[in-house]
Amino acid sequence: MKKITIFGAGLSASTMIKYLLDKAGEYDWHIRLGDYNEETAKSKIGNSRFGEGFKFDVNDAAQVDAEITNADIVVSMLPARFHHIIAAKCVEKGKSMLTASYISPEMRELDVEAQDKGIGLYNELGVDPGIDHMSAMRIIDQIRNDGGKVTAFFSYTGGLVAPKYDNNPWNYKFTWNPRNVVLAGQGVSKFIRNGRYKYIPYTQLFSRTMTTTVEGYGEFEIYPNRDSLSYRDTYGLNDIPTIFRGTMRRPGFCKAWNVFVQLGATDDSFVIEDSENMTYRDFINTFLPYEKNTSIEEKLIRLLPHLMDETVMRKLHFLEIFSEKKVGLKKATPAQILQKILEEKWHLDENDLDMIVMQHRFEYTDKEGNEKVKISSLVVEGDSKEQTAMAKTVGLPLAIAVKLVATGKVNIKGVSAPVMPELYKPILDELQTLGIIFKES
Amino acid sequence: MKKITIFGAGLSASTMIKYLLDKAGEYDWHIRLGDYNEETAKSKIGNSRFGEGFKFDVNDAAQVDAEITNADIVVSMLPARFHHIIAAKCVEKGKSMLTASYISPEMRELDVEAQDKGIGLYNELGVDPGIDHMSAMRIIDQIRNDGGKVTAFFSYTGGLVAPKYDNNPWNYKFTWNPRNVVLAGQGVSKFIRNGRYKYIPYTQLFSRTMTTTVEGYGEFEIYPNRDSLSYRDTYGLNDIPTIFRGTMRRPGFCKAWNVFVQLGATDDSFVIEDSENMTYRDFINTFLPYEKNTSIEEKLIRLLPHLMDETVMRKLHFLEIFSEKKVGLKKATPAQILQKILEEKWHLDENDLDMIVMQHRFEYTDKEGNEKVKISSLVVEGDSKEQTAMAKTVGLPLAIAVKLVATGKVNIKGVSAPVMPELYKPILDELQTLGIIFKES
Repeated sequence: MKKITIFGAGLSASTMIKYLLDKAGEYDWHIRLGDYNEETAKSKIGNSRFGEGFKFDVNDAAQVDAEITNADIVVSMLPARFHHIIAAKCVEKGKSMLTASYISPEMRELDVEAQDKGIGLYNELGVDPGIDHMSAMRIIDQIRNDGGKVTAFFSYTGGLVAPKYDNNPWNYKFTWNPRNVVLAGQGVSKFIRNGRYKYIPYTQLFSRTMTTTVEGYGEFEIYPNRDSLSYRDTYGLNDIPTIFRGTMRRPGFCKAWNVFVQLGATDDSFVIEDSENMTYRDFINTFLPYEKNTSIEEKLIRLLPHLMDETVMRKLHFLEIFSEKKVGLKKATPAQILQKILEEKWHLDENDLDMIVMQHRFEYTDKEGNEKVKISSLVVEGDSKEQTAMAKTVGLPLAIAVKLVATGKVNIKGVSAPVMPELYKPILDELQTLGIIFKES
Repeated sequence: MKKITIFGAGLSASTMIKYLLDKAGEYDWHIRLGDYNEETAKSKIGNSRFGEGFKFDVNDAAQVDAEITNADIVVSMLPARFHHIIAAKCVEKGKSMLTASYISPEMRELDVEAQDKGIGLYNELGVDPGIDHMSAMRIIDQIRNDGGKVTAFFSYTGGLVAPKYDNNPWNYKFTWNPRNVVLAGQGVSKFIRNGRYKYIPYTQLFSRTMTTTVEGYGEFEIYPNRDSLSYRDTYGLNDIPTIFRGTMRRPGFCKAWNVFVQLGATDDSFVIEDSENMTYRDFINTFLPYEKNTSIEEKLIRLLPHLMDETVMRKLHFLEIFSEKKVGLKKATPAQILQKILEEKWHLDENDLDMIVMQHRFEYTDKEGNEKVKISSLVVEGDSKEQTAMAKTVGLPLAIAVKLVATGKVNIKGVSAPVMPELYKPILDELQTLGIIFKES
């Protein structure tokens, strides 16, 4: 019997847990699921006889030691900052470990030691990072194996509300961490286009957008992600003249969002004086010039004339940012206040389901020297409040990877991301049987 | 005999050193001047029999100890980050110390200990901070003593090239640390206007400007300083409905500078790939969209149509930013590259002299309830390459303060800024005799 121990039973773990419990009988697995909230852990296991939930505290070193000693394979679904604590103990005890998160520098440092112990620290096994890497690498390897050369790679992902529940003027709801959405893109965004390095500051990010179409789902708008350059290394595309990664939204989102960026309302670096007692209207006014006898709406239009059209104003009114509603947050930053305002209007309603959209565009020269384009698109919609698109696309590749490791089908030593065929092929093949299917054109 | 020891013999120390040497005979002072560059220290003392220059290394703890043990009064003109090392030793040895810099948190922590020892740590005795505080406090105290109440305080300072040498389309040359000029205003700027807190993000800073006139010197443009709010405390104006501090430039500067801000060319947070081999033209192009067959100039106009007019384009051409000149800096940030480009065109020519401009505007209600306005302006031009406006306005108030402490006329214990009449009155009175004169209207 293989003992699989999972730390963290949050929303994005649901699909993975279900998958592993469903297969536990067939493969003779026992699942231990630990969470700081014992109830959550127990309820995710339910009445399955193949596992049990328990209270887990990552800060309890003795418990971490005991649980990892007792496990055969470890999965960390904890917040990413805790992974390296688990990883270090896994290396010490000689147990392989899997996560859905980016390889952190601390994780990277464990590489040699993990190799020496003959164990694997598998990362980036979710959706983004995860499915994006796997699906891109499959096509990149195909093109190379056919004697071609990739000259441009564009890749976009978006977490959105499913079309059926898309009923607000922003065509957007929070389906993932709202704070990350509010802060997205701060700093500089880097990519390379036809051999020219391009750097877009935050202030330009939401005006320098592109658009694309996904069959059956219509048009999307794309703004650049922070760092596209590092993916050259990940994908072995070091000489590629064009590489660009971006985030997908519905058309019109970025122009309206840019109002908040230009005002400074997404700033998380300082606290607004007396934020608790201000109204939404006051909040917006703190970013506008003082002008006696001019309304806030009018001042906003004068300050940002190139942004403030009818459709943008409609989106802003939907958020009630000009209302006398109280902020009610003590010592809050602009970003925290804005998040609160948005959460009231962008939360998923009781029956709303989410959607993950992903698209890759490859430009390449084939072995005959012809210039070609390949577009690969994925759309996954949520099935239920538990089996959301996010939980499925984060959890299933991770769950399949756990199975591959547990059954000895895969044995990659050291710190890895799923860019090698032995890992991505079986995962993508099985995802296809589970309805996570890329369409190529 | 009083032994006055000065650490740091840089440009801004020249006027102070001259003043102290000139008065040393009269007051029986001996001046020791230490600098990391021994030659600089010796040349500033020249052949005066009242002092000597020596090599000084702030990282040599034994030397710091010996010099402070041997001194009666210490002046630090070192870079601000070193002041607290000197200050801690001065407290230990029971010696008073003076600086022209902002009170740092580390300096503030020494307050109680310095009071216990009965010594003074005098700070902010330069121009900004320094003369700005003193001249503002004099008028604020006057208004209060006359039974009035200050309702608004605006204060602006600029370090510029003197009108006679003002011969480039920016009407600006570097008269002080160029790096600070390139990075100025990053983050958020805070002030209060008619009881309303206002926060201006960097992206709006150079478009939300004001203008003012200084008699005999024409018009100036003002952009907000980072933090005006903390000055309420400094000036004892905690309930004031309006307080605003800003930086002065010649009209038209801010609009053209905003081009660099909007492009992201002032960013100091990342390194540009292959910066060494790029041309100025390439540098600008990294911030512009990729468009085949469109010139960089044309792309810039399309990206920032509201900024790019004829006068702005003339300023940009003056800097040769569209030329094929090589950057030649390894692993440089955008801010470092921009600084290099600017230094080639904004350096002071051999005979150029600088100018300091300062203006305060007070709105107040007098004891009869009448609303009044008082404007106080200062312009100081440089006399020579050594006795610059900056060296005079930084060095003279500090030098006078040294005299006041050395002669026992002033004895303020603990950490202080010059906001009390016993310090600012004699300093402002003597500055007036030295040609540093505020004109009121």
